[in-house]
Amino acid sequence: MQYRIGIDLGGTTIKAGVVDETHRIICSHQQPTVEGFEIVVADMAETARFAAEKVGLEWDDFSSVGVGSPGFVNPHTGLLVLSSNTNWRNMPLKQELQKHIPLPIFIENDANCAVIGEMIAGAAKGYRHVLMLTLGTGVGGGLIIDGHLFSGGDSMGTELSHTPLIAGGEQCTCGQKGCLEAYASVTALIRQTKEAMKESPETLMHSHVEKYGDVSGRTAFDCAREGDAVAMRVVDQYCTYLANGIGGFITIFRPELVLLGGGLSDAGDTLLEPVRRKIEKYVFAGDIIGVPLIERAALGNDAGTIGAAYLGDM
Amino acid sequence: MQYRIGIDLGGTTIKAGVVDETHRIICSHQQPTVEGFEIVVADMAETARFAAEKVGLEWDDFSSVGVGSPGFVNPHTGLLVLSSNTNWRNMPLKQELQKHIPLPIFIENDANCAVIGEMIAGAAKGYRHVLMLTLGTGVGGGLIIDGHLFSGGDSMGTELSHTPLIAGGEQCTCGQKGCLEAYASVTALIRQTKEAMKESPETLMHSHVEKYGDVSGRTAFDCAREGDAVAMRVVDQYCTYLANGIGGFITIFRPELVLLGGGLSDAGDTLLEPVRRKIEKYVFAGDIIGVPLIERAALGNDAGTIGAAYLGDM
Repeated sequence: MQYRIGIDLGGTTIKAGVVDETHRIICSHQQPTVEGFEIVVADMAETARFAAEKVGLEWDDFSSVGVGSPGFVNPHTGLLVLSSNTNWRNMPLKQELQKHIPLPIFIENDANCAVIGEMIAGAAKGYRHVLMLTLGTGVGGGLIIDGHLFSGGDSMGTELSHTPLIAGGEQCTCGQKGCLEAYASVTALIRQTKEAMKESPETLMHSHVEKYGDVSGRTAFDCAREGDAVAMRVVDQYCTYLANGIGGFITIFRPELVLLGGGLSDAGDTLLEPVRRKIEKYVFAGDIIGVPLIERAALGNDAGTIGAAYLGDM
Repeated sequence: MQYRIGIDLGGTTIKAGVVDETHRIICSHQQPTVEGFEIVVADMAETARFAAEKVGLEWDDFSSVGVGSPGFVNPHTGLLVLSSNTNWRNMPLKQELQKHIPLPIFIENDANCAVIGEMIAGAAKGYRHVLMLTLGTGVGGGLIIDGHLFSGGDSMGTELSHTPLIAGGEQCTCGQKGCLEAYASVTALIRQTKEAMKESPETLMHSHVEKYGDVSGRTAFDCAREGDAVAMRVVDQYCTYLANGIGGFITIFRPELVLLGGGLSDAGDTLLEPVRRKIEKYVFAGDIIGVPLIERAALGNDAGTIGAAYLGDM
C-alpha cells in the first residue's frame, strides 16, 4: 500500500492528512495556526508527523510531503512570496520545513491544491481540463489543463481573482481597483448585501440578521430562497458578476468543467443555476461552441489536503 | 535545405510565403480576398502554389502547409468556427483546402500564428513564455508557454480580447459589453479620440485630421508627440486601459515577455513607455515578483505567414 501525506496551512488551522491509494484521507490531525513563521512551520511538520503516527506510519513510509499554503507561493524556490493574512513576504517556507522533514517537499498555492484534489478524488475525476474557483473570504483560482496543474510561465500565475472584472471599480485587497475578488468574494457579497439592506428597510434580510447575527455570505442566498425580492436582486447581481468573470476565464482556458468551491458554494443550486443560465452570454462565441459544465466542488475542505498529498506526482 | 510554407488569410489579401531554414520568407505571393468561401479557399491554395513555383518548388518539397486565419478557428476539426468579417460560421476550411493541397494542413488563429512567428524569427526569439497582443481594428491575442502555443483545453481559448476589462461597459463587436477589445483596439482608440475632439475645439487633433483625413489610430499619438494636452490625455487613458488589460494577463500567464504588434505598435515608444510605466500597478504583487519586458513585435505582417509555416512543427 502506498501512502501520501499532505499539509494544508490555513489562517486559523494547520491540517495534515494521510491519503491512501483509494485517494481517501484515512487519518488526519490538526492544530491551531499560531503566530511566528518558525513556530508555524515547526507545527506544520509536527501536525503531519502526528497524523502519520496515528496510523503507525513514519516519514520513511512516504516518498514526499506536499504543502498547500494560502497566498502567493513560488513552487520552484519554495518561497512564500506574499501572505496577506500574516503579512509575510518572501519567507523560506520549504527551506524551513526541510529542517523538520527528511523528505522531498513540494509547496503550492492552496487553491491549486484544491483543484488537484478535486481532479484526483472529487467532482473533477475523469476530466482533463478543469477550472476551479473557491469563493470564500477571498477568491481562489486553480486550473488543470491536460491533467496537469497550469499556473503560467513561472508557475506563479493564474491568480485569477486579481484580474480585472470592472477595472477602476471597487477597491480590492491587493491594492488594485475592480478585480474579480472585489465583486465575487464573500466579503464583496456581504458589502453588496449591506448596501441593499440599507436601501430597503422592508427586506426580510433585516430579520434574518436579527435571528442569525451579522450579515454573512448566507444572508442574501437564504432570503432569496424564501422569495424576498431584494435578496433575489442581490443574488442575481452577484451571480452576474461571477458569471461574467467565469465567462472570461472560459474564453481564455476552455475547460470542460468549472467547479465552484468555498463557503459560498454551500448555497448549491441557488448559486449554480443562475450562473449556469447566465454563463453563455459571457463566453466568447458561447452560443456556437458551447460552454462547459458548471458544478459544485465535492471535497470541501479536504480538497486542499488531498491535492497537497499528490503534489509530488504532478 | 528544408523549406516550409505558410498562408495568411486576411480580410483584404491572401498572402503565402516560402520560409527557409534561416526562418526568412524567401519568396511570397499574394492576391486579393474575394467573396465566397470555396473561391477564397481555392485562391489560398493557388497563392501558395504560385509562391512555391517562384523559387522552383512543388508541393512535394514541403512536409505540410500551415494556415493562419482571422476569427475563431478549431485546429482539431479544421473548422473556421466564426469569422466576423465574412459572417462565416463553421466552414470546413481545412477539409475544403485539402481538395487542392496534397499535404497535411494545419490551421490556427492568425494571432496565434503571429506569436509563433515572433518566437521563431522575431522579437521573441530565445524566450519560452511570451504573450503577444496585436492592436489593430480588433485586438488579437497569442500565447507561448514553455515554447509551445497555449490555447486552452480545447485549443480554442486565449481569445484574450473578449475577456472583461470593464464588465458592462462599452459595447464590443462580439455582443458582450466591456471587453478589452472595446477599449484597446484601434476602433476603440478612434472612438476615444473623437470624443475628446468633440469636447475640445482647441486641440491640435482637429488640424491634424484636416491635414491627413479621417480620425485614425495615429491622430492622438501623433498630436501627443507634438505636446498637445488633449491628445496626451487620450493616449494616457488608452495606455491605462491597455496596461490594465495586459496586467491581468500577466497575473494569469506570467510570461517573460509581452510583445505588442499590429498597426498601433507603430507608435513605438509613445505607446510602449507609458504602458511600461503603468504596468506594475496592474500586475498582482508586481512590486514583489517583478513584471515582464514589454517590447514591440519585430516582424510586422510577416509574423503570421512565418508562424503559419511552422504550425506543423509545433
